[in-house]
Amino acid sequence: MNAKPSVGALTAPLVEALVRDATTLRLAIEKTATGATIVDAGASVRGGLEAGRRITEICLGGLGQVSLVPDSRFPRWGMAIQVTTADPVIACLGSQYAGWNLSEGEFFALGSGPARAIWAKEELFGELGYKDEAETATLVLETDKRPPDGLISYIAKECGVAEDKLTLILTPTQSLAGAVQIVGRVLEVALHKAHSIHFPLDRIVDGSGFAPVPPPGADFLSGMGRTNDAVLYGGQIALYVEGPEDEAEQLANGLPSSTSRDYGRPFGEVFKAYNFDFYACDAALFSPAVVTVTALSTGKSFTAGKLAHEIVEKSFSGA
Amino acid sequence: MNAKPSVGALTAPLVEALVRDATTLRLAIEKTATGATIVDAGASVRGGLEAGRRITEICLGGLGQVSLVPDSRFPRWGMAIQVTTADPVIACLGSQYAGWNLSEGEFFALGSGPARAIWAKEELFGELGYKDEAETATLVLETDKRPPDGLISYIAKECGVAEDKLTLILTPTQSLAGAVQIVGRVLEVALHKAHSIHFPLDRIVDGSGFAPVPPPGADFLSGMGRTNDAVLYGGQIALYVEGPEDEAEQLANGLPSSTSRDYGRPFGEVFKAYNFDFYACDAALFSPAVVTVTALSTGKSFTAGKLAHEIVEKSFSGA
Amino acid sequence: MNAKPSVGALTAPLVEALVRDATTLRLAIEKTATGATIVDAGASVRGGLEAGRRITEICLGGLGQVSLVPDSRFPRWGMAIQVTTADPVIACLGSQYAGWNLSEGEFFALGSGPARAIWAKEELFGELGYKDEAETATLVLETDKRPPDGLISYIAKECGVAEDKLTLILTPTQSLAGAVQIVGRVLEVALHKAHSIHFPLDRIVDGSGFAPVPPPGADFLSGMGRTNDAVLYGGQIALYVEGPEDEAEQLANGLPSSTSRDYGRPFGEVFKAYNFDFYACDAALFSPAVVTVTALSTGKSFTAGKLAHEIVEKSFSGA
Repeated sequence: MNAKPSVGALTAPLVEALVRDATTLRLAIEKTATGATIVDAGASVRGGLEAGRRITEICLGGLGQVSLVPDSRFPRWGMAIQVTTADPVIACLGSQYAGWNLSEGEFFALGSGPARAIWAKEELFGELGYKDEAETATLVLETDKRPPDGLISYIAKECGVAEDKLTLILTPTQSLAGAVQIVGRVLEVALHKAHSIHFPLDRIVDGSGFAPVPPPGADFLSGMGRTNDAVLYGGQIALYVEGPEDEAEQLANGLPSSTSRDYGRPFGEVFKAYNFDFYACDAALFSPAVVTVTALSTGKSFTAGKLAHEIVEKSFSGA
Repeated sequence: MNAKPSVGALTAPLVEALVRDATTLRLAIEKTATGATIVDAGASVRGGLEAGRRITEICLGGLGQVSLVPDSRFPRWGMAIQVTTADPVIACLGSQYAGWNLSEGEFFALGSGPARAIWAKEELFGELGYKDEAETATLVLETDKRPPDGLISYIAKECGVAEDKLTLILTPTQSLAGAVQIVGRVLEVALHKAHSIHFPLDRIVDGSGFAPVPPPGADFLSGMGRTNDAVLYGGQIALYVEGPEDEAEQLANGLPSSTSRDYGRPFGEVFKAYNFDFYACDAALFSPAVVTVTALSTGKSFTAGKLAHEIVEKSFSGA
Repeated sequence: MNAKPSVGALTAPLVEALVRDATTLRLAIEKTATGATIVDAGASVRGGLEAGRRITEICLGGLGQVSLVPDSRFPRWGMAIQVTTADPVIACLGSQYAGWNLSEGEFFALGSGPARAIWAKEELFGELGYKDEAETATLVLETDKRPPDGLISYIAKECGVAEDKLTLILTPTQSLAGAVQIVGRVLEVALHKAHSIHFPLDRIVDGSGFAPVPPPGADFLSGMGRTNDAVLYGGQIALYVEGPEDEAEQLANGLPSSTSRDYGRPFGEVFKAYNFDFYACDAALFSPAVVTVTALSTGKSFTAGKLAHEIVEKSFSGA
């Protein structure tokens, strides 16, 4: 087995290009007093689909290819985001997963992207056997608020980089870029669920996925509802795994969103039913609608779950 | 709001690459006596689909991503052109729209692409509040004839560039590259119609679109018929707009080709019925078949129009 | 007509990037004692879909664009490989076709890719009127075994390059990269069959194609079966040709896999029925399922063949 790639080194040119193309992509760039770079991808500026596509590639640690393609499964909505990666476990769990809880005062956001692998203090990184060393750190924050200066310094310090080597990318849930980058997690949620149902991550060899791009919601709740529904009811992935065939079959059966007690209603309704307490929702719900797992040892594939066209339609249409 | 991007600066490397790869793309390059570059993309040489794809990205002022993808809506024809842009208004109206009427003697052509934004004498540019300043100028001419020297000098002078900084790209309607680059206007025609029905352009935030790639026609008329039918009866777009929800709804209802009195027949028939007078055809016809407009203020989407499979089939099949 | 592109020069940067990104793509790189580079894309290492996609672009001599896209025709399998090329005859027959038989002792492999055009000793190259001169040579070998040193020296000598300018890329049939790069031949097999039924190659102007990506087989036989079935029963291409309309029609009718006496069963069954003698199988079988040929002279298109969903499903599902 080869050494592992550096998600920090791989994303550095992508982040530079994002900042350089800020005018074109309609992003706002702030240099803080201490030298950190803050990229606003949709709070005070428009951003857009292409900014979201590029930010998704940054989230994937430079290990993924992300494209916007026609999606005939949902003809009214037209377009899907397609994700393939070299090395999906490092790309999705080592970088893209929103695993870094950041808060200071009233500010709260989940951090995702390559800086997580430099920090590497989440339990997950022990299991991945992965810690990145890179000279620059980039974190994507799903928020429409600028993080306070103290928190910016804290992130730089935790990553062991000077503040002028830190870039924070803000993607509001209800922005176009935010919608794209959340739905671009269609493969990541499957890997995260595979991990949570104890499938050995080192057996996951490759994968790909796609899900329809929803129209952005008018507010955080609606945006969160639609982006989740895009994945839970419209997302479709393939995984290729090593190990015994029956364990691949168990994985396929255990993965799709339909294994959850909360399956069958738009996510917004589920969320409301739990009084807007995200952690009260059944974690098993956060997974693609349809999953095909191939056991490379025998070449046999197992498919489970199904698309819920009517829920996608209801969710994306709702005001 | 950010400053606006320079379509001239963004396309310069794309034009350089097109000229550099001329052998590969089967283009003919002529350097005129006064130093202008003429790229023949299908009159005396073959050109091809990939040349058309790249020229479409040049037409979009370097602000668009254009790809050829499978299109299951029209299974016999297999392939669609998909267009996404950062900043669709500048990309499509500030650059891609064929708004510069050029003629000298018997020569006539419509000019599109980034040089239009340097010239910026069309009324539209006042409304866009956009004028580019760039050191090089590139214009795409939908013609199979080389423009006369006088006209080349005129274009350079009007753009304020030396002739050796001017590139003209010729794309005959009946060539492969021509077919691709015309159908690649699927989003542009929607923006142009939005403008003509008085929707404020500064409210259009983002968009994407796709349409089937027709087999080239054997002659200009057949080529023009098919490329128009691809958009009018097979094109599908999404727009994301600001402002009140009811105005987004009005826009959706006003946009599709089906709003036209001339809708329902292959474009070639319509054109013939008007004695081949393009300007006699109902301008409302020039728009995609299906349109979805999302009001970002409320998150509500409105869809209007419909695909006409039988017309696409008849048009693409006809000898 | 322009001069022809150098597939060697066009692929050199792609091969350099493949080697440079070996860690990311999970490839193993060996420098032999005599300086040749051997890239293992799936024998002792994992490789993956993205490695396969890039190797397909190398096989196409740097003249092709290859992407992994959703494929709604086979919903369970989700993903297709899409191939477009500038100059399909040179890309597919001058480079991608596996026409170089290599053996030494027990080692046997078919060689494809740009080194073939430098060697140019296959009869086909006389008909193509094409011989490349390039400083580096790259050959893709469909094998899971390292070629013996003597054979490596032989290839370098035959190509007239120093051994340290030679790169060999090994893609086992049953690997992920192997599956992708074989199915990426969907357009090439059509061109090869066009040649074998005596359609003049210089009349083929452009083309594109796509086919579903199968799950890798557990062994060589199963891998070979599925990758062939993906093309024979799920592949779809478009060709644009010059010359009389009736000859385009004949070409369309002569091309699809359904013209073969062996059509209608998974390839693995056919292969077994011929006692695993590849050359006993009907050569007419090796072609896409559906073919559309457009006569550019009249603009008329001819479609023949049909998809066989049930065979694809049976083949891809089988253990």
